[in-house]
Parts: sequence; structure tokens; C-alpha cells
Amino acid sequence: MELIDSHRSFGGTQQRFQTQSNTLSSQTTFSVYQPDGEGPFPVLYWLSGLTCTDENFVIKAGAQQHAARHGFVVVAPDTSPRGDQVADDDGFDLGTGAGFYVDATQSPWADHYQMYSYIADELPALITQHVPVDSNRVSIFGHSMGGHGALTVAMKNPGRFKSVSAFAPICSPGRCELGQKGFSAYLGDNPQAWQAYDATALIHHTSEQLPILIDQGADDEFLSQLQPQLLQQASEQAGYPINLRMQPGYDHSYFFVASFLGEHFDFHAKHLL
Amino acid sequence: MELIDSHRSFGGTQQRFQTQSNTLSSQTTFSVYQPDGEGPFPVLYWLSGLTCTDENFVIKAGAQQHAARHGFVVVAPDTSPRGDQVADDDGFDLGTGAGFYVDATQSPWADHYQMYSYIADELPALITQHVPVDSNRVSIFGHSMGGHGALTVAMKNPGRFKSVSAFAPICSPGRCELGQKGFSAYLGDNPQAWQAYDATALIHHTSEQLPILIDQGADDEFLSQLQPQLLQQASEQAGYPINLRMQPGYDHSYFFVASFLGEHFDFHAKHLL
Repeated sequence: MELIDSHRSFGGTQQRFQTQSNTLSSQTTFSVYQPDGEGPFPVLYWLSGLTCTDENFVIKAGAQQHAARHGFVVVAPDTSPRGDQVADDDGFDLGTGAGFYVDATQSPWADHYQMYSYIADELPALITQHVPVDSNRVSIFGHSMGGHGALTVAMKNPGRFKSVSAFAPICSPGRCELGQKGFSAYLGDNPQAWQAYDATALIHHTSEQLPILIDQGADDEFLSQLQPQLLQQASEQAGYPINLRMQPGYDHSYFFVASFLGEHFDFHAKHLL
Repeated sequence: MELIDSHRSFGGTQQRFQTQSNTLSSQTTFSVYQPDGEGPFPVLYWLSGLTCTDENFVIKAGAQQHAARHGFVVVAPDTSPRGDQVADDDGFDLGTGAGFYVDATQSPWADHYQMYSYIADELPALITQHVPVDSNRVSIFGHSMGGHGALTVAMKNPGRFKSVSAFAPICSPGRCELGQKGFSAYLGDNPQAWQAYDATALIHHTSEQLPILIDQGADDEFLSQLQPQLLQQASEQAGYPINLRMQPGYDHSYFFVASFLGEHFDFHAKHLL
């Protein structure tokens, strides 16, 4: 865990690290905001959307002020493995920047695209070892592809998180153009395999009910693909309530995320503090 | 004034415009945050630093929440003229992205590099015509080269602004490497001409005393060139007080700006509301 950048921010420190990930078989970067003090601090994991690195959220969302206010560590990983040896694709929806938080089973992707295990296991272990976090007070949130990631990682790991929230999540990647190319490349053409990473399927099978907050811009240019109504229907069928809020006028950008991020921190604080 | 981008943000609208500037003899872009409602709103002008466009501040500073909170319009112009016909230089400290908010007198720069007149005259006239602002409630602030710009534009236009603030301003561009190349290219080699755009000189000659707030990171990598002590000395000699705050640990980045931006909005609000 090598420090590659550090800035004082809102009375805490925003840092960026590089590490050799065994899970991804590649170098990877992640960013950590840490309040001053000894901790242990509750920790929030943020998963970003298509085309992002760990830096977009750090630069654009205004998260540091909220983390400082609540005394949270915030960890933002990259969205895929990267490097010369890592398989890639010309599209924005497959390959680097588009890991979809799954463990790929198909060649050539399976060699490095193990983002699910990296996020669920390797990264939290690394953070727990090197950052003064309280492993009993962990929540997760994300945007778009990262909203899908936050929901599915939380649902697949009962007991690990106190709450989960998402901005404009891709609710069922296998059922929209944004996700189908990646899912079929990473997981193969059998849609049955896709269910293991689909919040609208997982919500029927998870053994706990976490508090879930979702904000969705009503003027989001990807709304027809994000399909929050599918998650709402699944939630009702499963008897697993979610708080889905449609936000009039807002689009898919970080201007939308920033506008409601403080409320997401407040939501997680209710369950972490 | 052609709208080229628009996002809902913190209950208001963040927009970006393009216009043909007569002063700059070029197309130029600027960004405007506008709260909902009819106005007229007080207006803050933000001037950015070297290498920036109008977008850096809009994306990185987290200004919208503060503008929304106080009900301010915020206008962020570009830092230079741009375009194929505009003279340029390979350095980051001369040419595009480095207008230094002066009216160039030297060839080939004088044809387009008239940023002082654009900021002081043409842009406010355009904003007043198209955006519901209260022209009697105007303040100005900026970062680095833009901190220099804010201080000098305010001091050269008594009666126009209610307050001025700066983050890590280049206090005397003619006396540091960051500014000498630009000043000598734009204004010629006679340092006498540079005094007209030097806050440490202007502070002795202005006919009003505005409230001035300056934040400076104590760990700023450019501190030796920014020279806040020169402005502090000039302020004491001129009997024109400034509030200069050194912020331990902070660097020159937008992480620093964002950390104290809310306090700058609060400062301007005291004089605008």
C-alpha cells in the first residue's frame, strides 16, 4: 500500500494509494479520506460508475466535508483492473473502467476482472490492516454501475454492512444495453449466471434486510436503462422495502450526486453511529 | 450568449455559455450558477488560476451548495482568450490558460489578451443583461492567478464591489517567476507598467477600503512565489487592513479551496445581504 498523493482537506487528509492486488493480478489505485484523530472510524465504501477511476468521486462529489462532519473514513476503489497485460475493449461498457463488480468466468477476462472479490474481500482486509477503521461499522454506496455494485455486494454479504445507498444504480445490468455487453463478456451467455450479480434477483434471496436509500434523477439521460422500477417491483414482491426517491430535474452527472450526497452520509450515519 | 451545458444542482441550475467577445476578439466560455426564483440575486465573480478553464471551479470547488444556501449567482469566466487565431506559448504561465487578467499592450498578445477589460466591463454587462442579478450587490474572488485577478480588478474599480477574497493569490506577479514571463510578454519589459496590475502597488492608491479576506495554505508548494507577506506589508504601510489567514497543512489545490470556500461565501454574504 504505497502512498502516491496526499492533500489536506476539511480538517482531514485525502490520500491516494497504489497496491499490487492478488485478486486482480494487477496494480490498482484507491483513494482514502481519513479524519484527524486516532479512530477507529466507521468506514464507507464508494463504488464509481462506468469510465471512472477512484479519482472522479474524490474530485467531483464534495464528499470530504460530509466525511469530516460525521467522522467517517471513505474508501473509493478503481472500477476495474488496469495495465498493459489487462484485457480491454474499445467500448466504454466493457474492459477498463467497466469492471461491473463481478468475478469474470470467461476468457480473456477472468485473468484480471475479479472486481467482486477485490471489493468484497481483498480491499476491506487491506483497509482494516492499514487504516484505523471499525470493521463492525461499515456501509457501502455508489453511482450508476457503482450503485449496482453497492447493492449487489451488500446483498451478497449479509452481516457485513449496516446500510447501503445508491445514486442512479443500474438496477438489472443483464436487462439493459449498458450492462449486457459486460455481463455476457465476463459471465458468458447464460443469463442464469447473471442473476448472481443482479440486485433485482438477489433481493429475493438475501437473509437480511438492510436499510436501502436510492436517489434517481427524473431527467437522467440513462433512466430507461437504469430501470429503478424493476428494483421497486422486486422490492415489493420480496417484502424487502427500499426508499427510492425520484429527484425532478436532475440528470446522471456528479452535479446530481453532489446535490444529495450529504443526505446519503446522514442516512448512513443513522446506522453507523 | 449561447447555452452549451446545463445541470440541475443543489436546487438551482449550473449552466455553461459560449459567446463572441468583442473585447477578446474570440469565442469564450463562462459558467453561471443560478438559484431558483426570480431574483434579482447578488452575484459573485470567481477568477481561476493558471491552466484552468471556467470548468475547474465548477467541478472541483463545491461552490453550488454555498451559492444555493445564500441565494447567490456565481459567474466563472475562462482564464484567457482561446482559439486557432489566438497567440500562444508552450509554457503554462503564458498564453492560453494564463491571461493574468491584464490588458496586453505588446504584440502579438494585444490582439486578444484583454482579460482585464473583459472581466471588468464586458462580462458584467453581459451578465446584467441576461441573468437576474442585482448590479449593486457584486463581489469577487479567485484562486492563485485568479486571486491576483480578484484583488486587482476590485482595487482598480472603486465602488463596484462590496467585498473581495482570494485563495493563495499571486500577490505581486512581477516579483515572482510565476508572473514575470506573462507580465513581460503582455505588458513589456518596463516594470513600471506592471504596477497597474499589482495588488501590492494598487493597495496604496485605491480610493476605497473593501473588506478583504485571504486564505493561504502554509504548505502551499508555490508559497515562496505567492508572497502573501508582500501584500501584508503593503497593507500595513497603506493603512488598508486585510484579513490574511495561514492554514496549516493545506497546499495549493482545489482540496484547499473547497475546504474554506464556505467561509468565503459567508464572508461575502455579510457584505452582500
